Amino acid sequence: MSDVYPCSVIVLRLGHRVPRDKRVTTHVCLVARAFGAQGVFIAGDYDPSVTETVAKLTEKWGGPFWVEFTASPEKLVDCYKQKGWLIVHLTMYGLPIHEVLPSIKQRRRTGMLVVVGAEKVPLWAFEKADYNVAIGNQPHSEVAALAIFLDRLSEGRWVNLSFKGAKIRVVPTPRGKRVEYLGH
Amino acid sequence: MSDVYPCSVIVLRLGHRVPRDKRVTTHVCLVARAFGAQGVFIAGDYDPSVTETVAKLTEKWGGPFWVEFTASPEKLVDCYKQKGWLIVHLTMYGLPIHEVLPSIKQRRRTGMLVVVGAEKVPLWAFEKADYNVAIGNQPHSEVAALAIFLDRLSEGRWVNLSFKGAKIRVVPTPRGKRVEYLGH
Repeated sequence: MSDVYPCSVIVLRLGHRVPRDKRVTTHVCLVARAFGAQGVFIAGDYDPSVTETVAKLTEKWGGPFWVEFTASPEKLVDCYKQKGWLIVHLTMYGLPIHEVLPSIKQRRRTGMLVVVGAEKVPLWAFEKADYNVAIGNQPHSEVAALAIFLDRLSEGRWVNLSFKGAKIRVVPTPRGKRVEYLGH
Repeated sequence: MSDVYPCSVIVLRLGHRVPRDKRVTTHVCLVARAFGAQGVFIAGDYDPSVTETVAKLTEKWGGPFWVEFTASPEKLVDCYKQKGWLIVHLTMYGLPIHEVLPSIKQRRRTGMLVVVGAEKVPLWAFEKADYNVAIGNQPHSEVAALAIFLDRLSEGRWVNLSFKGAKIRVVPTPRGKRVEYLGH
């Protein structure tokens, strides 16, 4: 991952509810994987269907990538802060990404925990974050916010990611679908 | 919208299924709105809960923005093509965005219809598109793909969007939530 981000990136998804957030949380995980995060912690209702979906996809399309549920997201944030990680909370109430990204990039850190919420985010997430970052101040989607944040943080270098152990890969084509099955 | 995109942009969401896609389709609509598209056509199960959610949000946060269901998406694509619109289909099987975006930007067109699918996209969508564009060739999310496509197409100018008739707006702040109620 070192050619994509200068440090490890992990995502914390807050407030997963079953069944309403099943697909959106899955999208959060797949975006995290596709854009080069190492893994996702999910706080909320325990929902093995999300971890199973992501595990199957990672088995087929490659990894490494992990998803874990956490029962104490606030302690988890404290723990990562103590380890010198930068806590970045994506929220429509925060400061515009184009204003704060240069500062985020310059900060010394051993890793970055990117926090994305569902509908109601507890106040501690705003308070404990080193940066509350808005991808626009209009309501839209944590999936979109995460993708744009990682796209800009990596300056588009996620295109260079290679996924290990993939059984299949896409052969980009102007029309239709082409895939290649790999010998694993 | 003229300061964001050089032409009108409308989104076509293919394959909405109830209840599984309710929230993801809503996110597609909110991303389209937040990044300056004029509206969204949805093809699939008729689902007034999506249009109601988006209408309520637009009433509060401003517009104009519309969402409509269509029973014949293929005809709709034909119709927009005939009017000189460019059809751009976002798909993990397509050509990488960084390779095709310069060509898309240079194409003469009267508008742009951006097509995003759910899990299974019919072949005609690949065939009728002027461009099949991949935001990475890994499976992730149509919400993320749409956001990154519009972010790059507009070169980030969606930050300048103003939404008319808004009753509320966010006051960006480094910590916590600040909103302003507007006199409408």
